[in-house]
Amino acid sequence: MKKYVHFFDEGNKEMKRLLGGKGANLAEMTRMGLPVPKGFTITAEACIEYTKNQKKFPEDLEEQVQENLNKLEESSGKTFGDSENPLLVSVRSGAAISMPGMMDTILNLGLNEDTIKGIIRKSGNERFAYDSYRRFIQMFANVVMDIKGDLFEHILDQMKEKENVAIDSEISTVGLKEIVKQYKELVFEKSGKHFPHDPQKQLRMSIEAVFNSWDNKRAVTYRKIHKIPNDLGTAVNVQEMVFGNMGNDSGTGVGFTRNPSTGEKENFGEYLLNAQGEDIVAGIRTPKPLEELKNDMPNVYEQLISTVHILEKNYKDVQDYEFTIEKNKLFILQTRDGKRTAQAALKIATDMVKEGIIDKETAVSRIDPLQLNQLLHRRIDSSAKIEPIAKGLPASPGAASGKVVFTADEAEERGKNGESVILVRPETTPDDIHGMVAAKGTLTSKGGMTSHAAVVARGMGMPCVAGCSGININLGKELFKADGKTIKKGDYITIDGGSGHVFEGEVPMIEPKMSKEFELLLSWADDIKRLGVYANADTPEDAQKARDLGAEGIGLCRTEHMFMAAERLPIVQAMIMADDKVSRQNALDKLLPLQKADFMGILKAMHGLPVIIRLLDPPLHEFLPNYEETLIKVTTLRLTKEDNQELKRQEDLLERITGLREMNPMLGLRGCRLGLTYPEIYEMQARAIFEASKELLKQGVEVKPEIMIPLVSHVNELIPIYNSIKKIARELLTKEKIELAYKIGTMIELPRATLTADEIATYAEFFSFGTNDLTQTAFGISRDDAEGKFLMKYVEEGILKDNPFEVIDVEGAGKLIKIGVELGRKANPDLEIGICGEHGGEPNSVEFCHRAGLNYVSCSPFRVPIARLAAAQAAMQENSNEYND
Amino acid sequence: MKKYVHFFDEGNKEMKRLLGGKGANLAEMTRMGLPVPKGFTITAEACIEYTKNQKKFPEDLEEQVQENLNKLEESSGKTFGDSENPLLVSVRSGAAISMPGMMDTILNLGLNEDTIKGIIRKSGNERFAYDSYRRFIQMFANVVMDIKGDLFEHILDQMKEKENVAIDSEISTVGLKEIVKQYKELVFEKSGKHFPHDPQKQLRMSIEAVFNSWDNKRAVTYRKIHKIPNDLGTAVNVQEMVFGNMGNDSGTGVGFTRNPSTGEKENFGEYLLNAQGEDIVAGIRTPKPLEELKNDMPNVYEQLISTVHILEKNYKDVQDYEFTIEKNKLFILQTRDGKRTAQAALKIATDMVKEGIIDKETAVSRIDPLQLNQLLHRRIDSSAKIEPIAKGLPASPGAASGKVVFTADEAEERGKNGESVILVRPETTPDDIHGMVAAKGTLTSKGGMTSHAAVVARGMGMPCVAGCSGININLGKELFKADGKTIKKGDYITIDGGSGHVFEGEVPMIEPKMSKEFELLLSWADDIKRLGVYANADTPEDAQKARDLGAEGIGLCRTEHMFMAAERLPIVQAMIMADDKVSRQNALDKLLPLQKADFMGILKAMHGLPVIIRLLDPPLHEFLPNYEETLIKVTTLRLTKEDNQELKRQEDLLERITGLREMNPMLGLRGCRLGLTYPEIYEMQARAIFEASKELLKQGVEVKPEIMIPLVSHVNELIPIYNSIKKIARELLTKEKIELAYKIGTMIELPRATLTADEIATYAEFFSFGTNDLTQTAFGISRDDAEGKFLMKYVEEGILKDNPFEVIDVEGAGKLIKIGVELGRKANPDLEIGICGEHGGEPNSVEFCHRAGLNYVSCSPFRVPIARLAAAQAAMQENSNEYND
Repeated sequence: MKKYVHFFDEGNKEMKRLLGGKGANLAEMTRMGLPVPKGFTITAEACIEYTKNQKKFPEDLEEQVQENLNKLEESSGKTFGDSENPLLVSVRSGAAISMPGMMDTILNLGLNEDTIKGIIRKSGNERFAYDSYRRFIQMFANVVMDIKGDLFEHILDQMKEKENVAIDSEISTVGLKEIVKQYKELVFEKSGKHFPHDPQKQLRMSIEAVFNSWDNKRAVTYRKIHKIPNDLGTAVNVQEMVFGNMGNDSGTGVGFTRNPSTGEKENFGEYLLNAQGEDIVAGIRTPKPLEELKNDMPNVYEQLISTVHILEKNYKDVQDYEFTIEKNKLFILQTRDGKRTAQAALKIATDMVKEGIIDKETAVSRIDPLQLNQLLHRRIDSSAKIEPIAKGLPASPGAASGKVVFTADEAEERGKNGESVILVRPETTPDDIHGMVAAKGTLTSKGGMTSHAAVVARGMGMPCVAGCSGININLGKELFKADGKTIKKGDYITIDGGSGHVFEGEVPMIEPKMSKEFELLLSWADDIKRLGVYANADTPEDAQKARDLGAEGIGLCRTEHMFMAAERLPIVQAMIMADDKVSRQNALDKLLPLQKADFMGILKAMHGLPVIIRLLDPPLHEFLPNYEETLIKVTTLRLTKEDNQELKRQEDLLERITGLREMNPMLGLRGCRLGLTYPEIYEMQARAIFEASKELLKQGVEVKPEIMIPLVSHVNELIPIYNSIKKIARELLTKEKIELAYKIGTMIELPRATLTADEIATYAEFFSFGTNDLTQTAFGISRDDAEGKFLMKYVEEGILKDNPFEVIDVEGAGKLIKIGVELGRKANPDLEIGICGEHGGEPNSVEFCHRAGLNYVSCSPFRVPIARLAAAQAAMQENSNEYND
Repeated sequence: MKKYVHFFDEGNKEMKRLLGGKGANLAEMTRMGLPVPKGFTITAEACIEYTKNQKKFPEDLEEQVQENLNKLEESSGKTFGDSENPLLVSVRSGAAISMPGMMDTILNLGLNEDTIKGIIRKSGNERFAYDSYRRFIQMFANVVMDIKGDLFEHILDQMKEKENVAIDSEISTVGLKEIVKQYKELVFEKSGKHFPHDPQKQLRMSIEAVFNSWDNKRAVTYRKIHKIPNDLGTAVNVQEMVFGNMGNDSGTGVGFTRNPSTGEKENFGEYLLNAQGEDIVAGIRTPKPLEELKNDMPNVYEQLISTVHILEKNYKDVQDYEFTIEKNKLFILQTRDGKRTAQAALKIATDMVKEGIIDKETAVSRIDPLQLNQLLHRRIDSSAKIEPIAKGLPASPGAASGKVVFTADEAEERGKNGESVILVRPETTPDDIHGMVAAKGTLTSKGGMTSHAAVVARGMGMPCVAGCSGININLGKELFKADGKTIKKGDYITIDGGSGHVFEGEVPMIEPKMSKEFELLLSWADDIKRLGVYANADTPEDAQKARDLGAEGIGLCRTEHMFMAAERLPIVQAMIMADDKVSRQNALDKLLPLQKADFMGILKAMHGLPVIIRLLDPPLHEFLPNYEETLIKVTTLRLTKEDNQELKRQEDLLERITGLREMNPMLGLRGCRLGLTYPEIYEMQARAIFEASKELLKQGVEVKPEIMIPLVSHVNELIPIYNSIKKIARELLTKEKIELAYKIGTMIELPRATLTADEIATYAEFFSFGTNDLTQTAFGISRDDAEGKFLMKYVEEGILKDNPFEVIDVEGAGKLIKIGVELGRKANPDLEIGICGEHGGEPNSVEFCHRAGLNYVSCSPFRVPIARLAAAQAAMQENSNEYND
């Protein structure tokens, strides 16, 4: 006979899978001898079998429930359904993973017209008894019989009106009796059934309702979203009722063993005398701070504090507990690990190490890496009650408020005057960069996570919401509409690049704060992790920021952003528009000293650490003016026939843009294909890197440049570029006997590159997996196009577990990475392998990279701490798996 | 001591690798006892060692040459360098694989001021002797000493002028003597060296020149293009001279053992009396048909015919031979397998089987599958001497001539009037289809092999040259420029969709012809092959054509072309423009009967055979008007402010097009993503398929539809569509107890699909590898963008061996296919696997598919015969490999 029911004294906190979190903790506290109302737990296994078995109870379940009910009656001295000394119970669901959407609590179960008499007699409080009864009917009817709660509220309201009172607790006993009567009539009317009189039937129906709620739509959706397996099931806890509302010697409260907001070690909580649990939450009466209980009930307070300290010691973590005092007797109703802010989490974890409660590894494992985001960016105060007017893509984290402007020029002008502005554009182009720099943040209605706006903003560490299709921009009238509201130029808005939300007006913000606990904990993480953590940085400022946040190198220095700087764009455009090699070389000669200065800045900032510089990657048309706008200009000029010279100029431009336009630029003339088509571009860049290195070496700076060739699909693409760089190195370094520790390597970002990684590794000294492009090509999905259109729907509907551009798709891109690592290392055991791209700062992906045996991950500077922590957790995870094996 | 030199009697025809083709055949003929001038061959191995060893002769080579030269002197009774009875030789290169660009023949080697005396005395013909001398100097100086030939021609021309004669053979002996003098001076002037007197030196320099020519630029380029290994080397043949120009009892000629043009078994060739080999080619005197030799020299003719018949029997293939008659004595100078037209190849192969010379397998292995193309399409007569004015992509095979028109409307109008027109457009859109149908062919300046024009033309089996960037279209003036010429509307051009060439005017054509030999040989191929051969066809006409050409099913029926038909496009556009589900459903309801009729037509044409129907694949914007044109219209209408209603209409259209536009449509909202976003489209299509099948079943037609879902990357995309189709099947078939043998399967065209093929195969009943998209994603290359830009360069420069869109890239897409096959079959052993796409008709790719264990390949109807033959050859190849293992 399978054991489906465990009396609380038969379990412990390790049995969450079977008893659910709530049940396991109740059992644990019982085991510890703490004052817990007695009861029993029906296992999640019973729920699973019920679900599988066409909603039939497993054999023996009813019998076992009855046995445990008998045991409960015995220990309480009360009898279920008895009119003299009735046992009342609460019934609560409790899954292994806490989950809203599941059935709520039912209190006071066991009440009926007979048993209420016993309650009245024992409590001496008829009003309390009927109030309990009416609450029971409402809860039961609502959650078990599926009758809408507002119908009951309506009856309650009518009674308050009739009795001319304001709040529920002022309704008379007569009124409550009448309400109970009306409630029962309502139940019959709506369900065609009488409210169950028999407590056994009440209990059985409640258990079924909990079981059924496991598969209700809300719960299923929640599990889908939070990736909780569907076959866990939920346990059911049946517990003897205790009452905090039996007078001023009774009460109820909640508390934390430490301050969940700051992490300070202090008694934190609140309580109400003569009240039941829900009164605290309802907010009708204002609860008192826990400290005051010391005055109200000194003994109980002492007992509570010492009890919860025992709890914290036992659980080795902050506890969030609920208690009830019934006639001066303390009961702990529930305990669980307390939710806390990021700041508190760090303080608690480091304090607990100091106190000897946990070791450093445990402290590191306690922090959710993603939660660190809170501490790294300016953010919206979560206590502010505000509703967004639109939601776009969270393109670059951080929040910003400012006046709306619609052109880069105006953003620059107002920005220079010290005004805070938010630049709002359909999308941005290189022409808009001066405006983006001057604005506090950027909001676009089009484009995805890798759109121009998004990439530039992330590079600058400035907030950006991209692809916000909910805003309807009218550039002509300088306004946008969203959520039925019209926002004009100069109106304030706030954007949150971490969530993608757009708010009207200015909203309260919290500034980022990095505490000493933060650094302490990350230093422990560094001791544990095996993966290196590099940063993606394109400027000396970003490089310095990355270094400050613990980056051990630059994993991706994109050179295209250097080309896009406002003063350089004309030179770059001249290079692109060049009809022959000579004029192209002229333009490149002008770029050379600028690039050299760029590289000197970054290499200097990263002295002693490796800097991986990627040669020019994007298609050239990205550096030219927008195609549509030029087409409109040409069309207009042709019609007006006013300015023939300008028409000619624009026509030439249009022709060149048209010539460079591609159907699928992602898969077009970019990366090394560009380098092979116009070898002089990469030559200039290699020259700039070596000249910069030479000069810094002379200054005594230790430089470690690594030159990365993008978008290689075949080793034959790599070889000529490799040879050309080597040739320049010979010319600039070898001839002058300069020893520079540099490497030449490739991005591995195409499926074919992973499949032929052995060939590529015979030349490449390092691989850097470009997981964004690799995901795009493995899936055949253009991130820019898909994220706003079908990809979100895919994740919502569970077609994909995660957005593969956020979390590495282990089955697709991940498999390719594994193939690439294996082949690459086989051909070249010294191969240095990492990833760059946003995945490098996402904890699940970092764990994958650790398991795949990479040397480092690289991510944007602000994600470096997250990656350090995630890398440490991955190392610990692996070790614990080893022990388990 | 390594043997570097083989006297002709020491080898045979199997020794091509060592002796080269020419040397091996000379040895073979010697071995057979045929009349071959004696000589020896220096091995290709000697050439390789020379190349490797900084152009030094291998040890012993000189010694071995001398030994063989001595042997030659002995057998001929002549002495090399002797002024009495001098031995003259020819020196010729001969690699294992015939290859232009290698050093040409040097004749008459051994001549100098001394030896000429012996020649004069022995021949009694001073003019002949000096003519031979002058030819020798010119040939030697040109090919050995690298002095330009036209300088010698110039001297020759001056002499003709001086002597006032028209042709070389009229120059006087005195004149020839003077020429020899001037030639030698020219050599000294240009090279600073005297023309070598010593025959031994002449010989040594010639051998070196042959060796060096192996690595000259032209040869290297040729090998790169034709994928010939670089380390084969070339042999050198040294052979005693015989002279056909010793009077009317001498002569020279060439012949084939069968007619190389028709394949008829007849004596085919031509000859000249009193002439040397080069005179036949020079075209100054008109050679006589071989048959006339019967009258001129009956005995020699008899001997020649019986000799070459022995040759054919020995080689078991048509021989292309050269002969010389010196004073009534016949010499065979060379023999090799004869090149022939496709038609002749078929005739010869099937005749030889009938004659018992070869077996059927050998016959099947003799035909180059690609050569069959000649027989399947109208083509340009290769004997016409014409130069193309431009070259684009060979987008759809076949040739066509017609008047140039620049709009689809004009094409339609003129076409209806019976005029032959070629539609010339920058690119085509669905709006142009009526014009493409009415035209004889289409020429576009943009777009690639999968551009709209290319795909539609291939579907219709009409000629198309796409992406021809060499033509500069001016639509306003209705003309285009190419190669400095201006072609106006109404001018004739000819396009060749098989080569991509564009010609001015009309050029002679050859009509396709399918002989009974063609069908016989293919029926033998069918008996040998293991792979099924299906066709891609979208219309009943194409399906019938495919069936006629031997297709065993339809491997890809694209439904989008059905949507693009002129009368349907408005309905499709209404569907796309629909703002809600109801109006979308209305449009779909109108499409349903049309689609049903489409499917009935195709299923009926293929009765008894499977028809794989792919649900809608392309992004929806492809069905809407062109974005640029609409943008220009809107801009113009806004400026002119003339027609507000039209402006509103165009603005709405532009908004919708803009909304549907994508950065990378190849990777956007298409394929099953479309089916998941608008489920009602696929539902309509599934319904149409089942309803069509039902109706045909009632008519007694055997139908086997297979429904194919495109662009699946994750099994979770397949499941809802699979379920929805199954539901419709239950409704339309199961309920009415109709038994229909249908399947549901997927395209496997994304890397992720191959990597998770096991999961996908738990639902899919068949896989069809979409190698075009798979290549695009594996390489990260957009075919449309790359083919015209960098991909051709890649192939030319040897970065890629082949264009991966023509020949399957075995290391990339091929590896993914293998993974997909393995995983898919593991999960579902009954899985039916094929490929569709152009690769299915390319012989190397067919061989790959055979080796990868696929069930079938599918290609355009006209490629079906090619695929059948290639599949048979692949099967034979495999068997022979098995024996070799």
